[in-house]
Amino acid sequence: MTHPMIADLEARYTTKKYDASKIISEQDLAILLEAIRLSPSSINSQPWKFIVIESEQAKERLHTTFANKFQFNQKHIKTASHTILFAYNPEYTREDYEKVVDADVANGRIAKDNRDSAFGAFAFVGLNTDEQGRNANWTKAQTYIALGNAMHAAARLGIDSTPMEGVDKQMISQEFAQELQGYECELALSVGYHLPADDYNASLPKSRLPLADVVTRI
Amino acid sequence: MTHPMIADLEARYTTKKYDASKIISEQDLAILLEAIRLSPSSINSQPWKFIVIESEQAKERLHTTFANKFQFNQKHIKTASHTILFAYNPEYTREDYEKVVDADVANGRIAKDNRDSAFGAFAFVGLNTDEQGRNANWTKAQTYIALGNAMHAAARLGIDSTPMEGVDKQMISQEFAQELQGYECELALSVGYHLPADDYNASLPKSRLPLADVVTRI
Repeated sequence: MTHPMIADLEARYTTKKYDASKIISEQDLAILLEAIRLSPSSINSQPWKFIVIESEQAKERLHTTFANKFQFNQKHIKTASHTILFAYNPEYTREDYEKVVDADVANGRIAKDNRDSAFGAFAFVGLNTDEQGRNANWTKAQTYIALGNAMHAAARLGIDSTPMEGVDKQMISQEFAQELQGYECELALSVGYHLPADDYNASLPKSRLPLADVVTRI
Repeated sequence: MTHPMIADLEARYTTKKYDASKIISEQDLAILLEAIRLSPSSINSQPWKFIVIESEQAKERLHTTFANKFQFNQKHIKTASHTILFAYNPEYTREDYEKVVDADVANGRIAKDNRDSAFGAFAFVGLNTDEQGRNANWTKAQTYIALGNAMHAAARLGIDSTPMEGVDKQMISQEFAQELQGYECELALSVGYHLPADDYNASLPKSRLPLADVVTRI
């Protein structure tokens, strides 16, 4: 199948070795971050924060969080151009949704007189909240939408990427407590440009199960 | 910011009313499904099935599953061109991963002598599996990557879409037991072309929190 989009998605792969000398241009990074900001989420909840690790100091801090586990991902932190932490709000509340609703009232999506009824969609959050007020499974899942969107966006920009569930949630929570403001992070995306000589995954064939194994048309 | 990708993502929105007379071309549908098949997932697990509802009969069956709840989404089923059920394997096992590994051995990604060590990545599944053998939170999250990728893909193809967490998992499990083969579905995406006169959401402004609220660069 030949289509520019399929070509992008076939060319995308998980980079295993970055060229530390190559940095994403400010223009491309801004486009990538804007694409991430535009990610859809259930009831437009946007229960996320994206912490972009770009300074040497921030990279050093993130590097230290691999002290106990997932060391196979540690090498990307100082060699990739940037690493984006995908963090979710573990206790999304009506007050959080109020920010979205009020922005909608301000931009005209919601008429001022309909503000109260706009909270009807918040019932969805209730369905996903436990007795302790946690809805982390639900908010975390939303960050995977952003991740899917971000990986497609990076591919389209010719930016290499490495998605990582292999990050240390506890150590990141401690090290980046100030930036996370109570949000939790179990997912990150390194982005940059690969080092052809050492990136063994770049030349391997694309591997996906056959269409018939995963798609059923009825 | 002007960039073709940002234009696509800004134009994308959740369609609230479809034109039942418009069907996605076979060519575009094939591209969309191939894009979904190419979605990344943790350790390339691909713990998913995508059930494409396209026949009148299948639409009727899905329509009936809205009998008890989420009726606000029911109208899309018979008016959208297609609805794709995103189903996850609630008990992903070593045997499931074996299919991926063996495909990799066949396509040359993994040397035959390295087959055993390729299962090292499966440790990740163990980290996400409970005592009953369920890892549904993890596999379900992977389907949200596919959803994020699919919505970006649809936008790029000029196809309108409606993501829905508002589907009845129990009724879908019963009605589509044969197709799901034990997989579970709490997520669907209607795709088609909107009806301009009645799709109130099409003309409303895009609503996302400001970049400074969701992105922190350090």
